Amino acid sequence: MTVDGAKSPPLPKTNSVDRVLTMSEIAEAAGVSVMTVSRVLNGRPDVAAATRERIQRVVAERGYARNRAASALRNGRSGLIDLVVVTLDSAYHLEIIRGVEERLESTDYRMALSATHGQTQGERQWLAKVIDGSTDGAILVLADGHAAHLERLRQRDIPFVVVDHRGELGSDTPSVGATNWAGGRTATEYLLSLGHRRIAIVSGTAALGCSQERLSGYRAALEAAGLAVDPALCRQGDFRYEDGYREASALLDLPNPPTAIFAGNDMQAVGALNALRARGVSVPADMSIVGFDDVEIATLVNPALTTIRQPLAQMGAFAAAMLLLLIAGEPLGSNRVELATELVVRESCSAPRPA
Amino acid sequence: MTVDGAKSPPLPKTNSVDRVLTMSEIAEAAGVSVMTVSRVLNGRPDVAAATRERIQRVVAERGYARNRAASALRNGRSGLIDLVVVTLDSAYHLEIIRGVEERLESTDYRMALSATHGQTQGERQWLAKVIDGSTDGAILVLADGHAAHLERLRQRDIPFVVVDHRGELGSDTPSVGATNWAGGRTATEYLLSLGHRRIAIVSGTAALGCSQERLSGYRAALEAAGLAVDPALCRQGDFRYEDGYREASALLDLPNPPTAIFAGNDMQAVGALNALRARGVSVPADMSIVGFDDVEIATLVNPALTTIRQPLAQMGAFAAAMLLLLIAGEPLGSNRVELATELVVRESCSAPRPA
Repeated sequence: MTVDGAKSPPLPKTNSVDRVLTMSEIAEAAGVSVMTVSRVLNGRPDVAAATRERIQRVVAERGYARNRAASALRNGRSGLIDLVVVTLDSAYHLEIIRGVEERLESTDYRMALSATHGQTQGERQWLAKVIDGSTDGAILVLADGHAAHLERLRQRDIPFVVVDHRGELGSDTPSVGATNWAGGRTATEYLLSLGHRRIAIVSGTAALGCSQERLSGYRAALEAAGLAVDPALCRQGDFRYEDGYREASALLDLPNPPTAIFAGNDMQAVGALNALRARGVSVPADMSIVGFDDVEIATLVNPALTTIRQPLAQMGAFAAAMLLLLIAGEPLGSNRVELATELVVRESCSAPRPA
Repeated sequence: MTVDGAKSPPLPKTNSVDRVLTMSEIAEAAGVSVMTVSRVLNGRPDVAAATRERIQRVVAERGYARNRAASALRNGRSGLIDLVVVTLDSAYHLEIIRGVEERLESTDYRMALSATHGQTQGERQWLAKVIDGSTDGAILVLADGHAAHLERLRQRDIPFVVVDHRGELGSDTPSVGATNWAGGRTATEYLLSLGHRRIAIVSGTAALGCSQERLSGYRAALEAAGLAVDPALCRQGDFRYEDGYREASALLDLPNPPTAIFAGNDMQAVGALNALRARGVSVPADMSIVGFDDVEIATLVNPALTTIRQPLAQMGAFAAAMLLLLIAGEPLGSNRVELATELVVRESCSAPRPA
């Protein structure tokens, strides 16, 4: 790249980190138009030899960045915020992504989106891509804690916020969640208020804090109503349609089936809905169902799902806002924010049939 | 930043564009560990004064990039591929996003995701963020052609691939689509093969080439079967649930209603399904419905939708693969690729009731 620069006047000295020029700075230094610089840098033939030489001299002496990397170097930032999710095939994640994107839209930041596909390898790949500092911060929506990876981000001074995490990450980890315990309790109290006494739960992924909290809220509501928790009515799912379908079928096979099901999320609720329909059980006349999340599917199935709304887009937006504060070095009001869940009544619940 | 470097041995000369060091290069040049460099650069106090000075000298002489910008400068790339979609609230876009992400996962690239929200302002904002070259290429999933914006990308030598575009962008625009005409024809032929003669269509957004092609395929199938196209059975939608609901209701109100509906996409088909249920019309016994896309909702509603599958994730992956070729300066086999649609038979179609 170095050319003989003897004939060019010396350029003013600058700090070495400032040496790399943008296209318009090269144009100014060489006394030509940006268009001409562009032609030379892109190897087009239609530029006079002397002009081309002058531009090349500036580039050789001062350096040129084809991309924003140059300006990023000056202010020490990449202009990127990373959003890391487990999968890209769920409405749950799409809502969070949308919230982050909308919060960043009016800023200079772009959102770099990665999926780990629930694999340690996926997380390592992402870490390898950003760990040298090519991110200004990260929002992590991970199925599990991955405390070791968070530690690596900390070591590199990469700020991050965790969305919907397990509680055990500790109070020094900035995070946004929803009031899962309250949601579990509200769902169960609603079914109790309709007159149900045998209320089943099909929990979501057992390892996740949000599932544990919802189950705990369910138990608390039953106990507050003076009802014992029947282990036969506490089923385990994994947040998927298939689990809801399977566990609803199993509940129907009990000697004394429930009259209502509180599902771990909307996908499980839809699975339960279709399992019941396949068995000729009418919802809500013969069985009530409450979901969790309030993603789009809840409004599209028939009957539309009564569910506990989790404000996923707002959680994403809140996480982005917290991260922007961290990047700016400003204090967070609180390291842990929980946004409220709320009951959304639609068509999938009614009073139980008289015994 | 400049410190007195008189006591340090001169570092070997390099090209000016190579002058900026990564953390590990600074560690090597200063003869210390990366951890020590990190401590100094992050302003931590626990480093001996002489060591700190040696590191600061290297930084002053050679420059340091906090982020990947440094290495990006060397090879003239940002390490980012931009994916621009209209909205982040549809399963259609999520599938394409997933395909792009999975294709890029094994590469050095990260995916920067932006949504324009269908507004010119949104597109301008995105262009402003990337137009100075802070992207290595773009995949555009735009509702409309936006030929002016594509022209600006061309002027800046930013390679791009358009997904599911209107045909009129011209043969010099690299693009990936699906065989929409064949899909429209296949859907209609399937309904004809079941014995239907009064087949309605609720088209998607009229301005989009994909909608026009599907409508054209529908007309071709009817004409090939010797049937006239009844204008009363050709309805206009906008790819939304509400359109399907509204137009299915309107079709039921006709003096001579259809026995089958070909919907512009799955969301419209689900809207039609719920409108029919609300009117007591049984699907498929009284009315058959065919959707388009085969997104998740198609399998979750009851009856599950018979639909024309559009390989959206593969289209995203294909667009990413084409873009990687363009970035590498390698030739594309073809500027225009159409992936095949296919009929997926589920539960929403049957033979019409005997007249």
